[in-house]
Amino acid sequence: MRTYAVAIVGATGAVGGEMIEILEQRNFPVQELRLLASERSAGQTLSYQGNDITVQRLTDESFEDVDLGLFSPGASVSKRFAPVAVRTGVVVIDNTSAFRMEPNVPLVVPEVNPDFLESHQGIIANPNCSTIQMVVALKPIHDAVTIKRIVVSTYQAVSGTGKEAIQELEMQTRNIFTQRDLVCQVYPHQIAFNCLPHIDMFLENGYTKEEIKLVNETRKILDDDSIRITATTVRVPVFYSHSESVNIETEQHITPDEVRELLANAPGVKVIDDPAHNQYPLATEASGEDDTFVGRIRQDDSIDNGINMWIVADNLRKGAALNAVQIAEKMIDMGLL
Amino acid sequence: MRTYAVAIVGATGAVGGEMIEILEQRNFPVQELRLLASERSAGQTLSYQGNDITVQRLTDESFEDVDLGLFSPGASVSKRFAPVAVRTGVVVIDNTSAFRMEPNVPLVVPEVNPDFLESHQGIIANPNCSTIQMVVALKPIHDAVTIKRIVVSTYQAVSGTGKEAIQELEMQTRNIFTQRDLVCQVYPHQIAFNCLPHIDMFLENGYTKEEIKLVNETRKILDDDSIRITATTVRVPVFYSHSESVNIETEQHITPDEVRELLANAPGVKVIDDPAHNQYPLATEASGEDDTFVGRIRQDDSIDNGINMWIVADNLRKGAALNAVQIAEKMIDMGLL
Repeated sequence: MRTYAVAIVGATGAVGGEMIEILEQRNFPVQELRLLASERSAGQTLSYQGNDITVQRLTDESFEDVDLGLFSPGASVSKRFAPVAVRTGVVVIDNTSAFRMEPNVPLVVPEVNPDFLESHQGIIANPNCSTIQMVVALKPIHDAVTIKRIVVSTYQAVSGTGKEAIQELEMQTRNIFTQRDLVCQVYPHQIAFNCLPHIDMFLENGYTKEEIKLVNETRKILDDDSIRITATTVRVPVFYSHSESVNIETEQHITPDEVRELLANAPGVKVIDDPAHNQYPLATEASGEDDTFVGRIRQDDSIDNGINMWIVADNLRKGAALNAVQIAEKMIDMGLL
Repeated sequence: MRTYAVAIVGATGAVGGEMIEILEQRNFPVQELRLLASERSAGQTLSYQGNDITVQRLTDESFEDVDLGLFSPGASVSKRFAPVAVRTGVVVIDNTSAFRMEPNVPLVVPEVNPDFLESHQGIIANPNCSTIQMVVALKPIHDAVTIKRIVVSTYQAVSGTGKEAIQELEMQTRNIFTQRDLVCQVYPHQIAFNCLPHIDMFLENGYTKEEIKLVNETRKILDDDSIRITATTVRVPVFYSHSESVNIETEQHITPDEVRELLANAPGVKVIDDPAHNQYPLATEASGEDDTFVGRIRQDDSIDNGINMWIVADNLRKGAALNAVQIAEKMIDMGLL
């Protein structure tokens, strides 16, 4: 069996750490693992399969003999170094927003649009966390009854922002309980015991970039620009896993039972929908899991063909690192790597 | 100036405590304050305007010489005792769900439908917390451009459940930080660092009672059964103030600027909508305030006439105790009390 030299760019970040863990858990055919990060983090050692690996500083020379690059640094770093890696012959799976909307870069969720991979030109983009879990759950429904419109409100974990945000929520919470002053460095306002309707930058039209990502990326992945989408993205004081309240309007009628049956047979989806026994998807229970969890599936009687649902997934795993590794696995299956 | 003998039923609860505080803050013309609660809480003393008042056990004889009853016990207690109070000549403003949907009981938000008070027959119902803040913000828009449909997802504080829930969130959070076992008594699952898509009981159709309250109460208060509403209500790890992500479709077109202008002039509403300076409504900042805060007002381009907004209010104040006291004040103004 062929093995691959894999470089992880942004290895010391929240998603980088998950990438290492997931390669290990899934026995990805790693021949050599190269861990790359900024100068600040270089020199740290991280463990992979019981071996300590020293993190190297990312440079133009970092990609020699590398087959696969899993990128999760900032978007500007990806923009700078992904083309360098591609010129060295590396296939780059990039978790940042740098290339997602470029027409010649496939934006892929393996359960949804693996065929997009065939046209890749070196860079494959990993979608935004909040988009991935939504399209995994909606794709089977779109195929069956054609989704016309989506209204989504999110409940997003701080780990989506990165390690510093996890620390900020933790410190703020401790400081509230010990009556010390709160420090807000990562977020502009207190996140502990609060909800911030603000993820990523604000744009001219009043939407955040995160909200626009949900719109544009969903359309690109489902390959259907006719789907109308509106989003409100909100940061909540949760460490891991994003939850989403999703309302859809479909062309043809579909019942909650039919949705449950469709999703029960869908790849990467697990239906947890037994309200009588208080069973519904929860961030705490999705954390560390690979599936996207769907529940609270109800008929929306305010329109003719409407469904409400609650979608939860581990934002660092399916929302980032796992999806990237699954793309690589799919490319191996398809003979593209 | 006339003064009133006021009884607070459920005086030792989270809302009861706010009622006492609000009567004091607003200089409500109290002649005598009688604090009533279940046997378990009777004998406690609570402070009102510097005086200690002993909480008495609620009985059929509790309402002698009382003019105004502010009720916030459980719905079953209201069902049992509100009619007793009314027979004794008391005007009852009831904060529970017991009478809200009864055709002969006005369900009132003073900024929205004060005229409903005229037809009261002794009991006036105070709406559910999540409904009140939504209708305060939507009423001026409905009057201007007629709301056809509402899709709402909520982010509700634990104080809406009561004092025990406030303690549960606090204890669970502490126990996580001290690595002790979590106890879930009030909620069926961990609420600390989690989101529970479950408020009040589940019904046959998969919705919770809270979700159906939002639908039915909004229609009753706006006096318009043609408004179509669908709701997903979610408990979040926030102590005070509910946030709501509200999407509306209107008959006539309206721009975000027009919405801001309408709401800037609306009673009980404060617009906080300056994303360039990270200004939007927040639960932490709404707590202790009387207004309903609205921000993140955006055009929803997924439909012809759509608006998204973010609505936040203190669930114990405007969502409960304050609205009840405002109803009493309005009734005094109108010569009904």
